[in-house]
Amino acid sequence: MVSFKSIATTTLLSATILAGISASTDAAGKEHQGKALGHAKHAKIAQCKNGQPKNVILMIGDGMGISQLGAYRYYKDNENVPGLDKISFDNYLVGSQLTLSDDPKLNITDSGAAGTALATGVRTFNGAISVDKNKQAVRTVLEDYKAAGRSTGLVATSELTHATPAAFAAHNPSRKDEMDIAKQMARTVKVGKEEQPIVDVMLGGGTDFFQQKDKNGKVTLDLVKQMQDKSGFKYVTSRDEMLKDTNSKRMIGLFAESAMNKHIDRTEKEPSLKEMTDTAIQKLSQNKKGFFLMVEGSQPDWSGHANDLTGMISEISAFDEAYQSAIEYAKKDCNTLVIALADHATGGLSVGTGEKYEFHPKVVDQMKMTHEGLTAKLLEKDADIEALVNENIQIKDITAEEKKAIIDAAKAKDEAKTLAAINKVVDKRANAAWGSKVHTGEEVHVYAFGPGKEKFMGVQHNIQNAENIRSFLK
Amino acid sequence: MVSFKSIATTTLLSATILAGISASTDAAGKEHQGKALGHAKHAKIAQCKNGQPKNVILMIGDGMGISQLGAYRYYKDNENVPGLDKISFDNYLVGSQLTLSDDPKLNITDSGAAGTALATGVRTFNGAISVDKNKQAVRTVLEDYKAAGRSTGLVATSELTHATPAAFAAHNPSRKDEMDIAKQMARTVKVGKEEQPIVDVMLGGGTDFFQQKDKNGKVTLDLVKQMQDKSGFKYVTSRDEMLKDTNSKRMIGLFAESAMNKHIDRTEKEPSLKEMTDTAIQKLSQNKKGFFLMVEGSQPDWSGHANDLTGMISEISAFDEAYQSAIEYAKKDCNTLVIALADHATGGLSVGTGEKYEFHPKVVDQMKMTHEGLTAKLLEKDADIEALVNENIQIKDITAEEKKAIIDAAKAKDEAKTLAAINKVVDKRANAAWGSKVHTGEEVHVYAFGPGKEKFMGVQHNIQNAENIRSFLK
Repeated sequence: MVSFKSIATTTLLSATILAGISASTDAAGKEHQGKALGHAKHAKIAQCKNGQPKNVILMIGDGMGISQLGAYRYYKDNENVPGLDKISFDNYLVGSQLTLSDDPKLNITDSGAAGTALATGVRTFNGAISVDKNKQAVRTVLEDYKAAGRSTGLVATSELTHATPAAFAAHNPSRKDEMDIAKQMARTVKVGKEEQPIVDVMLGGGTDFFQQKDKNGKVTLDLVKQMQDKSGFKYVTSRDEMLKDTNSKRMIGLFAESAMNKHIDRTEKEPSLKEMTDTAIQKLSQNKKGFFLMVEGSQPDWSGHANDLTGMISEISAFDEAYQSAIEYAKKDCNTLVIALADHATGGLSVGTGEKYEFHPKVVDQMKMTHEGLTAKLLEKDADIEALVNENIQIKDITAEEKKAIIDAAKAKDEAKTLAAINKVVDKRANAAWGSKVHTGEEVHVYAFGPGKEKFMGVQHNIQNAENIRSFLK
Repeated sequence: MVSFKSIATTTLLSATILAGISASTDAAGKEHQGKALGHAKHAKIAQCKNGQPKNVILMIGDGMGISQLGAYRYYKDNENVPGLDKISFDNYLVGSQLTLSDDPKLNITDSGAAGTALATGVRTFNGAISVDKNKQAVRTVLEDYKAAGRSTGLVATSELTHATPAAFAAHNPSRKDEMDIAKQMARTVKVGKEEQPIVDVMLGGGTDFFQQKDKNGKVTLDLVKQMQDKSGFKYVTSRDEMLKDTNSKRMIGLFAESAMNKHIDRTEKEPSLKEMTDTAIQKLSQNKKGFFLMVEGSQPDWSGHANDLTGMISEISAFDEAYQSAIEYAKKDCNTLVIALADHATGGLSVGTGEKYEFHPKVVDQMKMTHEGLTAKLLEKDADIEALVNENIQIKDITAEEKKAIIDAAKAKDEAKTLAAINKVVDKRANAAWGSKVHTGEEVHVYAFGPGKEKFMGVQHNIQNAENIRSFLK
């Protein structure tokens, strides 16, 4: 027996670890815990069965490595208080994961292989979507949860057919085959005697893939309509429509033809990652048997590829907001495990550069769009380039030379050069540097809250996550 | 009560976490634990008093950030086995720490402020050695352990008067004042009725500071002699002498005028970090009341500043070797807590660069010296530059152009250029990049084994470590 007193007196043992232990208490333990937390919470904890969560929310910050979180931490810090303020994730750190795939040539993972590892527990080659090294389909945890009668959901800010969400509900040797992936994601499966959609809630981008068109723009395959007709999906295409609906159990929300805009670049039509997460939980939690939901903050990764500090902060902010909301739900529910992790890091961000012991990412608040978003706008036909630059880059000490570099590159329709010129202005003031245009191989953090969190403790291989999630069905 | 069964059945709870919990078991718990582990171990665990360690070994890998460990992990990996192999540290991950100092201008810490935070629990300005923001001396954990009658030790591969070890036994507003720092480290203090040296065992570099000379090389202050005369220190200056001595309780070992050479650059005279660590433990453990030992792998940091991948791997290897030896001791002893952490990260190392999903640090095995070490040799008077290059850089596909760049820079006695030219050859093949010449601000990992490890779990501020270590004296 571990005495309650001995645990309680290790005062620095974080509250979340205590919570984790409380979920596996025996009768006597519950009494103690009940007294400590008050009777209302005691009653909730009593519902939890041997530390097995009924619901699992897996949140993936694509490319959200430890340095990227470090930059976000500096961004969020109240500089009037000594030391860095903790961010929401910090309360729930349980360990880290090694992300290496099993590719014949490359020894840093892509998001296809990383998604496959997380979704299936199998290491595979880069670019694969839940197929093994022999290109054979391997079962995903989402498929397992569906088979067990639970509801399933996928939320992403990329198109839903992009590597990470795809890996949970489709199987294809190539992540690029998004037309086929959409078909698989819209499929139905037999659950007992009932024909059910493999995914009950899908929110993100990707009209182009779920309403496939020919060269003339004529819809040739309307998967959305199939889903509506066959399984009674509610279809929404705007934030308002999505938020208004509180009745449907099944929903497909497509808010962009391909990927959604980044958090700070959103149009009014586009919900935030938090709003999509809340909506998905609201739908899925109607199933008394429980649910599996994967939420991807898809674009810290893209900002990493673009070396776009404003985008990186924007996307981690959105993910953090969604994360806090999921944690809030889990705290009330007590039957929900929330895991947050990155699939890998992207961009090789250096938190400080040159010879200076300084890092100032708050400068991104002077950017009204992400660097990628602004670059796209600047390269649009008939763009008023100078006005766009003045409007969106409100960095007071920007030099005439720096402005000219951006404007000249945009006029020349040179996307890479335009982006690089904007990056340079921000990185200089933030004192940031980027070491890579793609992914990097260092370990990434794993955060967990709720029953079952103990399984994620320590340094683990990414494939272990699927095993852990699967084990809760036993 | 937390039932033993519920903990035992969470099979993925790492053995070390179990070990941590076992240290705080009550009588009934011990019985369970005893059954699980066998009676021999049960007997050992029974010696541990309420999870309070008698001995604390704090191991600091200066500049050994998470990316740096990531590079080391790739270096150590058996590529024939899918996935990255775990390294020794991975079994003991308990959390991470935020390293920010409290400097009026800089928001990334130096090693003085970081050392002060770890040694005293007080945030201060960069460059400070255990003084607060008002330049007032603040008590260190080493001083606390000494006052409590325990033995104390410092091991480093830098000169012992360098920032990190200095912060444990000296107080000075400037880390640069190493002459004064040496005097403080050689001082005695009253413990009960006895006059004792503040540090009982010191092993590392720094003859220049402990035997201070005038311009003509005449010794003007021999602190070593004082330590020998006053407190009976054994003085050793070579690996052999150090290893031969098994009787002395007090030892000062100085193996270089200033810093020692890096691990793979060592002369025969210089012991490894592991050998110094073992020796310190052998001396200090003779005190039945217990001991505090700080072991610094001083030079991952220097390799980070130099952007020297071979040096980084060399220094982390040496630290790993010392770490494993300390862990082995702690496992046998059961009364010893081993904490390993970095004080900050250095160099902004990107684990992969450019557009490539690849990282190949094993190339450093083709380097026979660190880049810094080789640069120093190449710049020596009358150096046979070409021979040195051929002998120490055994990279088969090195081009004539690459060689020429190194040789030309060395001939021109341009240290920075010579180092950069060597770095370039290795980084290109490793596919590595460096984002900073100094420290970076992301969190760093904390590893712990032994009684009391629970206190280090989760994300914590670096100042908390001193509080934790101090708490074991209560």
